[in-house]
Amino acid sequence: MAGDTTITVIGNLTDEPELRFTPSGAAVTRFRIASTPRIFDRQSSEWRDGEPLFLSCSVWRQPAENVAESLSRGSRVIVTGRLRQRSYETREGEKRTVIELDVEEVGPSLRYATAQVRKMDRSNSRTATPTRTAGSTGDDPFSVAPTAQHSGFGDDEPPF
Amino acid sequence: MAGDTTITVIGNLTDEPELRFTPSGAAVTRFRIASTPRIFDRQSSEWRDGEPLFLSCSVWRQPAENVAESLSRGSRVIVTGRLRQRSYETREGEKRTVIELDVEEVGPSLRYATAQVRKMDRSNSRTATPTRTAGSTGDDPFSVAPTAQHSGFGDDEPPF
Amino acid sequence: MAGDTTITVIGNLTDEPELRFTPSGAAVTRFRIASTPRIFDRQSSEWRDGEPLFLSCSVWRQPAENVAESLSRGSRVIVTGRLRQRSYETREGEKRTVIELDVEEVGPSLRYATAQVRKMDRSNSRTATPTRTAGSTGDDPFSVAPTAQHSGFGDDEPPF
Amino acid sequence: MAGDTTITVIGNLTDEPELRFTPSGAAVTRFRIASTPRIFDRQSSEWRDGEPLFLSCSVWRQPAENVAESLSRGSRVIVTGRLRQRSYETREGEKRTVIELDVEEVGPSLRYATAQVRKMDRSNSRTATPTRTAGSTGDDPFSVAPTAQHSGFGDDEPPF
Repeated sequence: MAGDTTITVIGNLTDEPELRFTPSGAAVTRFRIASTPRIFDRQSSEWRDGEPLFLSCSVWRQPAENVAESLSRGSRVIVTGRLRQRSYETREGEKRTVIELDVEEVGPSLRYATAQVRKMDRSNSRTATPTRTAGSTGDDPFSVAPTAQHSGFGDDEPPF
Repeated sequence: MAGDTTITVIGNLTDEPELRFTPSGAAVTRFRIASTPRIFDRQSSEWRDGEPLFLSCSVWRQPAENVAESLSRGSRVIVTGRLRQRSYETREGEKRTVIELDVEEVGPSLRYATAQVRKMDRSNSRTATPTRTAGSTGDDPFSVAPTAQHSGFGDDEPPF
Repeated sequence: MAGDTTITVIGNLTDEPELRFTPSGAAVTRFRIASTPRIFDRQSSEWRDGEPLFLSCSVWRQPAENVAESLSRGSRVIVTGRLRQRSYETREGEKRTVIELDVEEVGPSLRYATAQVRKMDRSNSRTATPTRTAGSTGDDPFSVAPTAQHSGFGDDEPPF
Repeated sequence: MAGDTTITVIGNLTDEPELRFTPSGAAVTRFRIASTPRIFDRQSSEWRDGEPLFLSCSVWRQPAENVAESLSRGSRVIVTGRLRQRSYETREGEKRTVIELDVEEVGPSLRYATAQVRKMDRSNSRTATPTRTAGSTGDDPFSVAPTAQHSGFGDDEPPF
C-alpha cells in the first residue's frame, strides 16, 4: 500500500480483545483502545484529563492470536497502524462512517508493567488448524450486520 | 499537553477553507482533507484507489489566517496535529462522536506544485485588529448549533 | 517498501537547497533542516531552546525541482519521509554512518508565512529535458567523493 | 517539551539492554535497535533487505527497570520517542554527533511472540531503593568518557 496515513497510539484496552476466524480460517482480533491526553489548565495551573480518544483496532492472522492470548481489558498498549475510514449502514438505513485502525504492530507497554515474552514456534502456530466460526459467510467475521443472536454487539455500536 | 496522539496526513482540501473569528478576536480556520491510499490488487496485479480517509481540521490564530489566504479547494497539503475526539448531540438528540485534527503545522505540498512563500511581518498581522463575527456567543465560532441562516452547514454535517 | 521508519520533521532550512541531475537526467535536491525543541527549565521556570536536531534530506524528480524553486535558506518546512542510515568512508579511510531523510512529501509551513501555490503543468515540466551535470558518473550526483573542485562541500561534511 | 520530533520505530534489540543507576538513584536503561526495511528490487522482481537503521535508545526510571527485566538481545520491539541529537568529543578530540532516541514508550511486539504481562505494584518498585553504581559522577551514568575498565564500550563506539 502507498499513501497510507500511519499513526501510533498509546492507550488502554477498554474491553477484552475479541478473536474470530474467517471461513477460510484466518484469525482476526478486534479491540478498542482509549487514549487520554493530559491538558494543562492555565486557570487552575493543574493538569487534568482531556477527552479520551477511542479507536477500534483490527489485527489479522498469527498476531491476532498473539494479541488475544497476551492482552486483556485495561492493558496499556502501543499500537502502530493505518488509519482507515469505513462506511456502513445502520439497521435504520442511516449511513455512518467510522475511523478505525488497521494494526501493523502492537505490544504491551512497559511503562507500568513487565512482560515475559515467548517467541512463537512458527511451524506450530494455531493458524494452521483454525477453529471456524459457524455461520460466517464473508471474509471478515466482524463485517456481518449485528443481530442480537450472533454478534454480541449492542445496538449503539458500529457493526464492525 | 502530554499523551497526545499526533499524526501526519497528506491529502487534498475537499472545500475552500473557512475562516471565522471568536468574539475575543481569535481567528480559527476549518478545512477538510481527503487522503486516498493506493492499494495493490493482487488479482488484477494493479494499483487502485482505496476508500479515502476524510478528516476535519482546525487551525487557530495567525496560522488560521495564513491557511485561509494560501490554500483553496483541491490544494494538496501536509498536515501535522493531534487527533482528537469530540462528542456532540444532533438536533434529534442523538449522541455522535467525530474524530478531528487539531492542526499544529500545515503547508502546501510541493509534490505537484511550486509555492512563492512570503514570511509574515509579525508586528503587522491582522490578528491585532480582528474582524468580529456578529452574533457569536462562545469561544469557538464553529461550536454553535448549526442553523440554516448563519452556519452554512447542512443537517447531515456535524455542527463542528 | 515495507518496514520503513517514517518520520515528520518541522524545521528550518540551514542553507539554500541544492539541485543536481543524475546522468540519466533525474533531478535530486538536497537540503538540511534544523529542528529546535523547546525545553521547560524547572529551575528557572522558563522555556529555552534545546539542542537542535539537524537532518539531511533528499528529494527526487519533479518535487526536487519544485523544492529548489520554492524554498530557500531559513524557510520553515514540514517534511515527511523515511529515516535511512547510510555508511561511507572518509578520505582518511574511516568508516562513518549518517542518518538521513528520504523525503516523501515536503512543503513550506504556514505558521509564520503565506504561500502562493502554483500547480505544475505536468506535461511541461523541466524534467522532460533535464540539464545534465557534466562529469557525473553514478546514479546519485551527490554520491561522488567530495573534492574542493567540483563538490562545494567542505572536508568536514559527509560526502552525501 | 514542545517542537519535538517524535518517531515510532519497529526493530530488534542488537544486544542485551544495559541498566545503570545515577548517583541520585534514577534508573536508566540503554539499548540499541536495528530496523530493517524491505525493498522491492524491480530488476529481480523480488523483495530484499535494505540497509538497517540502527538507533540507540534511552529509557528512564521505572520503565528502565521494566525494560531490563522484560527484553533481551533479539527481542522485537515497538519504540516511540523523541529523536535527539547529541554532540560529543572523541578521545582524539574529534567532534562527533549522534542521533538517538529518548524513549517515551516501549514494548515487545506481538507479531511473532506472546507476552505474559504483569502490572507493577507501584508502591513497591525497586526504584525506591536503588542500587548505586560506584564511581558515577554525573547525572547520566552513560555520559562518562568510556574507559576499558568500567564501560565495556569499545573505542569505536560513541561514549553514550
